[in-house]
Amino acid sequence: MRAVVRRAGKLICDTIDELDPGPGQVRVKTLACGICGSDLHALHHLDHMVEMGRRSGGGGDMNPAADIVFGHEFCAEVLEGGQGATRFKAGTRVVSMPVNMSPTSFDAVGYSNKYPGGFAERMILTEALLLEVPNGLSTEHAALTEPMAVGEHAVASAALDKTSVALVIGCGPVGLAVIAALKVRGHGPIIAADFSPRRRAAAEAMGAHVVIDPAQTGPHTQWAEHGVPMTGEAMRAALFSGAQTGRPVVFECVGAPGVLQSVIEGCPTKAQIIVAGVCMEADKIEPSLCINKQLDMRFVLGYAPDEFAQSLFNIAEGKINVEPWVTGTVGLDGVAQAFVDLGNPEAHVKILVTPNA
Amino acid sequence: MRAVVRRAGKLICDTIDELDPGPGQVRVKTLACGICGSDLHALHHLDHMVEMGRRSGGGGDMNPAADIVFGHEFCAEVLEGGQGATRFKAGTRVVSMPVNMSPTSFDAVGYSNKYPGGFAERMILTEALLLEVPNGLSTEHAALTEPMAVGEHAVASAALDKTSVALVIGCGPVGLAVIAALKVRGHGPIIAADFSPRRRAAAEAMGAHVVIDPAQTGPHTQWAEHGVPMTGEAMRAALFSGAQTGRPVVFECVGAPGVLQSVIEGCPTKAQIIVAGVCMEADKIEPSLCINKQLDMRFVLGYAPDEFAQSLFNIAEGKINVEPWVTGTVGLDGVAQAFVDLGNPEAHVKILVTPNA
Repeated sequence: MRAVVRRAGKLICDTIDELDPGPGQVRVKTLACGICGSDLHALHHLDHMVEMGRRSGGGGDMNPAADIVFGHEFCAEVLEGGQGATRFKAGTRVVSMPVNMSPTSFDAVGYSNKYPGGFAERMILTEALLLEVPNGLSTEHAALTEPMAVGEHAVASAALDKTSVALVIGCGPVGLAVIAALKVRGHGPIIAADFSPRRRAAAEAMGAHVVIDPAQTGPHTQWAEHGVPMTGEAMRAALFSGAQTGRPVVFECVGAPGVLQSVIEGCPTKAQIIVAGVCMEADKIEPSLCINKQLDMRFVLGYAPDEFAQSLFNIAEGKINVEPWVTGTVGLDGVAQAFVDLGNPEAHVKILVTPNA
Repeated sequence: MRAVVRRAGKLICDTIDELDPGPGQVRVKTLACGICGSDLHALHHLDHMVEMGRRSGGGGDMNPAADIVFGHEFCAEVLEGGQGATRFKAGTRVVSMPVNMSPTSFDAVGYSNKYPGGFAERMILTEALLLEVPNGLSTEHAALTEPMAVGEHAVASAALDKTSVALVIGCGPVGLAVIAALKVRGHGPIIAADFSPRRRAAAEAMGAHVVIDPAQTGPHTQWAEHGVPMTGEAMRAALFSGAQTGRPVVFECVGAPGVLQSVIEGCPTKAQIIVAGVCMEADKIEPSLCINKQLDMRFVLGYAPDEFAQSLFNIAEGKINVEPWVTGTVGLDGVAQAFVDLGNPEAHVKILVTPNA
């Protein structure tokens, strides 16, 4: 089958061998698959990514010197089931968490030398993990289930209450998914900050109540605007006055060196910081500021199966406005250029790959 | 009255003016007051400490160029009440959180140019915050209420469950107080690590189940010894086998550069890190390891009034073994030398100052 292969740090369209579905597995035809920021990083820095995975006690089983087919944000159509995999009729559209699992194995799909991801005409998936795409939901929107689940998980990880002010730093796909998950909960105010006008527009379209250009206004000026006590003294005064002061939450969705420390410096006392942006380099923080402010820092990754299912439900029921998301579609031939184009935040939010179009 | 004054970065015994108790305040005679690690830091680096406090939005109101009398871990005897402060008879022994507060003010005691702390013959305290020391509890042990409350708060901040394995890194007073608070809860296993033989002995006496010399064995080897799954894969296997896997918790009680990163590298996936050691310098971490491991990092400071009261109760009821703690007692003349002696972890755990002895 045709696929976009990462080979020696480059993306190459090639024909590759296909696996057959094993017991409990199904062969699917890839209908659409989003390009993720992690894919961009993995193209050029896969050695480092694998090393960090290995040092974290997992995810280090890829061989960057061998072929890998990326793509983990997909919607696909069932072709045929392997032994015992009879639950879905051929032609059914499905989404799935990008993993293959059995009682004795657990492999990524898309970050694996074994299982090609969605930048290929076909994939092998695990039947038990497939969710049928409801009638009426477009393939393009169903393919957003995975990136939206990342936001769902980040927000579910926060100790939000009704009066928490939420600040989202960075409005790339992760930040936008966080805004979406906040919006689904009816949460407000949602303050979003990004240097890019395009991304700020997307944040607004997703439902952010206040959108900030950090080049114009420090995002942390917004706390006081929304009545959040910044200091212990202000917090005591607020308590004595009977004010509602839910724990403020910052979602760090950038993942570049220095951003975490800027949040530590700018955020209110007792803030919770949900770190969803993946900073791959070593980073400097001042722990004594964290202690003085009694910060709570949660580093989040991925999602649970129920959060993935919730994400599909939210999209299918129209609870999330996914319109601002898909800004481009390419065939397999266009993937390499799409990786370049995504480097410019003004150009795109999300590009979908349609390997069979 | 006589007091040990911090003046121009030195500790000097001098005679200083005394305040009179205002409304709601009492004058007390200091019976015993512990020397805290923060005092050691503040002696030489008060400018930096004040700057960090100011940058954190609080605690920055001390003038390091003016006199300050340290001492915030005290047991005292009531001498006389100011207007309306009639609840305690003269002679009553009390402990208090080291703050003076009124409806319109909030000041530290011991880290303040206004209110001398316990390294003085007498103090002004707030009647509403005083807790009477129960009959039969020695003054020396009552003075440990404050440092023990730090451990109580750190442990209360953790999401411990019955099957959580707890690792305490650093067995100075903060680490020992954490061990005590874990022990009070009947929690186990408690693993404690410190390079100092004296501190390891104290940790064992406080109730740690396993005591590690990091020069001999990496403290993180203990996770596997106690059946904690280190990786996502091991965690899945444990879940499938029905094993109990409470969230592992690390208490970072050292506060030196590099320790946090070593915990990040060594701890199991999904660990919770309670940061109680105060690292005053900038520190380097690898956020992508934190994300891969889905770490939860809580920076804790101080305690709540109920935790302070709980700490006094635990000591008074003999629920905490405070015997290993007090390793020296000095008068005001001996304070400067005691600050030097405390630099050697082999020499001391806690030195009490008895200004009126």
